[in-house]
Amino acid sequence: MSDLKGLSLNTATTKRWTLAETVAGCVDAGIGGIGLWRDRVAEAGLANAARLVREAGLTVTSLCRGGFFAEPGAAEDNRRAVDEAAALGTDTLVLVCGGLPAGSRDLPAARRTVADGIAALAPYAEAHGVRLAIEPLHPMFCADRAVVSTLGQALDLAEAAGHGTGVCVDTYHVWWDPELERQIARAGAAGMLHAFQVCDWLLPLPADALLGRGHIGDGHIDIPRLARLVAEAGHRGWTEVEIFNQRIWDAPGEETVRTVVERHRTHLAGIG
Amino acid sequence: MSDLKGLSLNTATTKRWTLAETVAGCVDAGIGGIGLWRDRVAEAGLANAARLVREAGLTVTSLCRGGFFAEPGAAEDNRRAVDEAAALGTDTLVLVCGGLPAGSRDLPAARRTVADGIAALAPYAEAHGVRLAIEPLHPMFCADRAVVSTLGQALDLAEAAGHGTGVCVDTYHVWWDPELERQIARAGAAGMLHAFQVCDWLLPLPADALLGRGHIGDGHIDIPRLARLVAEAGHRGWTEVEIFNQRIWDAPGEETVRTVVERHRTHLAGIG
Repeated sequence: MSDLKGLSLNTATTKRWTLAETVAGCVDAGIGGIGLWRDRVAEAGLANAARLVREAGLTVTSLCRGGFFAEPGAAEDNRRAVDEAAALGTDTLVLVCGGLPAGSRDLPAARRTVADGIAALAPYAEAHGVRLAIEPLHPMFCADRAVVSTLGQALDLAEAAGHGTGVCVDTYHVWWDPELERQIARAGAAGMLHAFQVCDWLLPLPADALLGRGHIGDGHIDIPRLARLVAEAGHRGWTEVEIFNQRIWDAPGEETVRTVVERHRTHLAGIG
Repeated sequence: MSDLKGLSLNTATTKRWTLAETVAGCVDAGIGGIGLWRDRVAEAGLANAARLVREAGLTVTSLCRGGFFAEPGAAEDNRRAVDEAAALGTDTLVLVCGGLPAGSRDLPAARRTVADGIAALAPYAEAHGVRLAIEPLHPMFCADRAVVSTLGQALDLAEAAGHGTGVCVDTYHVWWDPELERQIARAGAAGMLHAFQVCDWLLPLPADALLGRGHIGDGHIDIPRLARLVAEAGHRGWTEVEIFNQRIWDAPGEETVRTVVERHRTHLAGIG
């Protein structure tokens, strides 16, 4: 199974499975890493979730997600997310930072709120052994999900926050960026490349643009090239497969895991 | 009508109108500028179209569009677009540069093709008194419509091409960019801000993401702020309203023009 080295399955990819089912699916397939969403952890119960992954021998490659800094109660909820990451034994908390507040068009102000929120959270995370990984989202989500839109911007925020803060690079969100090579190299050189997530860009975009993601090789992104850039930048961590796609969610989990494994072998084995 | 100073209506906004109807609509509303799409010009016939706008006393603020450099016959078609711009009396040809070639995932190669195509076209345009205006499209169109995704990238291409080449800034495509202020200032300082188009960003995105644009004030973009940035950068040209939206296309043209005028008065009068 050495050709699956570095492969991690995010629970969002097998959305219909419980955490226990996804853990079992990883073990059966020889996948050594798992990325966890908090909703799935909450269903299982935090202590039980931590026990499940530990007893299965899986590495928890990230917890998704903290962020949404403009929401009421965000500071408290984000500290809770750090606590959960620590309890689950992962060193990486992915941050999806939130879009424009309802009714606002003030993008610079929204970006300041995010910068302040990350800066306030970073020392707490560091004290708990957790690295924050700021995830730039595709610019089409700027209004509603993340005002952090490029890797360069995420790195600026991470540098300002300090305390081990870094970034999460997701191929779907960053593949189009003319600055991508330079910013990936910058992230690697600064030791800030905390997480690498992969999925493909499908066309046409579905009615819910969140769900236009596909298995590696089914879309328009040269994912092996991006994986090589990340490896050349010094990333020796995991490659987490996170796919939001209704058709894939409707497929049996076993079939999805088989495809994930097959695509990793075909496109990514030997890189990094 | 001095509060409509600088307002231009793009024919794409009143899509169901013929060119003659849009020209009449502009005159009736006191709008002094018109942006032309080539399909509408072709329907009217080039010489007739030129006569229509000239006799109405309208300024043709741009011709849309050249570009799609990877298509067969692109070089010839783009020279024809320059000829048409000159015949119509406009100094600005907007370029939408095209996405990945069918079946290709090689984004760097696609971007080289675009750079080569612009560089080859620029001297021809200059010789005919036409300035090329490279339009960065929103990154969600990178695969299928334009591998030019940011204003900074468009300016790099324009600088490399020379011969008066500049950019077209469309609020819909660039509003999310963390580098926007800096790049608008750069464009202005270099005399490369050849065209400014406005429309708003609506959510949810429609099934056809091309059509998610709205009247100024109906969406999430702070368009007055962007208009001020453009004015501060020295843009003394036109503000062209170009909206792709099925609901607006289904409305009577007179109603659309009334709304365009009203929104310009409310949001943009006195800027620039």
